[in-house]
Amino acid sequence: MKQSTSFLKLVDAFSRLNGVGPKTAERMAYNVLNMSNSDAKYFADAIIELKQKIHVCPNCGLYTDDDLCEICKDASRDKQTLIVITHPKDVFIFEKSLKISPIYHVLGGNINISKGITIDSLNIERLLKRIEENEVKEVIIATDPTLEGEATALYLKKLLATTGVVVTRLAYGLALGSSIDYTDSLTLEKALEGRREL
Amino acid sequence: MKQSTSFLKLVDAFSRLNGVGPKTAERMAYNVLNMSNSDAKYFADAIIELKQKIHVCPNCGLYTDDDLCEICKDASRDKQTLIVITHPKDVFIFEKSLKISPIYHVLGGNINISKGITIDSLNIERLLKRIEENEVKEVIIATDPTLEGEATALYLKKLLATTGVVVTRLAYGLALGSSIDYTDSLTLEKALEGRREL
Repeated sequence: MKQSTSFLKLVDAFSRLNGVGPKTAERMAYNVLNMSNSDAKYFADAIIELKQKIHVCPNCGLYTDDDLCEICKDASRDKQTLIVITHPKDVFIFEKSLKISPIYHVLGGNINISKGITIDSLNIERLLKRIEENEVKEVIIATDPTLEGEATALYLKKLLATTGVVVTRLAYGLALGSSIDYTDSLTLEKALEGRREL
Repeated sequence: MKQSTSFLKLVDAFSRLNGVGPKTAERMAYNVLNMSNSDAKYFADAIIELKQKIHVCPNCGLYTDDDLCEICKDASRDKQTLIVITHPKDVFIFEKSLKISPIYHVLGGNINISKGITIDSLNIERLLKRIEENEVKEVIIATDPTLEGEATALYLKKLLATTGVVVTRLAYGLALGSSIDYTDSLTLEKALEGRREL
């Protein structure tokens, strides 16, 4: 007995999502089979609707359903502080945590030669233009603390060296609520390096 | 900054799948955002197509895209051996493992009073009819080895007591390749109970 073609098609579609293996994809397809027709339609509609309505803000690279995103339209933003993020979704954690109201710029990835992501595939030209236009004073680089994120941060730092803008990087160190026991040695080294007087 | 409505709609749709929490659903919705439009359409189409083409076999309860399922149409099956399974997907593991070619019957769930699944919501009437029609000699009950699965198996055993059909249950015991160290005590007890001479 074989799975039918339409079942395998949906399994395939699910398994294209990051982190979804064949077993999980199969389980999800069964979930859809068990849904009411109207729930399945809601699901399919949601996919199509999302792709129709949401696109990348041409200015900063965040997702938006308008011409410009909410932040680019917001005149009250401090336009001289710009946070460089890797992915559009990273904005939400900053907006939740921050006391300042900066502008953002989405790189769209990190430099990763093995994956073919070079400087040219990142949204950097527009970053330079925005730094100039907004007379940005500080660029906070918030790429991930990974090999690729670090390489990208260093590249940006070099690139911006001549512009006179202050380039900063998020601090490394212990995560609040974590245990020193379980902290990896690199992080501990960075936390030690960055120690401050109490 | 808030997530847009169409984004939240897809997050909601994903989180209706079993085992998908809000964080995972959000990650998946971002995956869809990053897809090409044609990939997103493929995904949405697959959902709709699945629901249109696949339905439950009116005879045995397995999924099929035909009038009757592959197994019910197969004249070469041993119709006197019937395996009672809980969910349609359970058929695949049996078909992979078995040397016999039985027929199947899908219950559609286990008795679970707290979830409101009573005998009436299970596909039992049709089971009795099929046992009679096919002159079934052995009913192998393959419900899960859980509280609910056991209760359902015992109920079926009682129900079929008067029909003269042999009612069997899958054996309990150690999983092949598992370690006795990690076997729970109930399973070990069952494995001991069911020990055989070598």
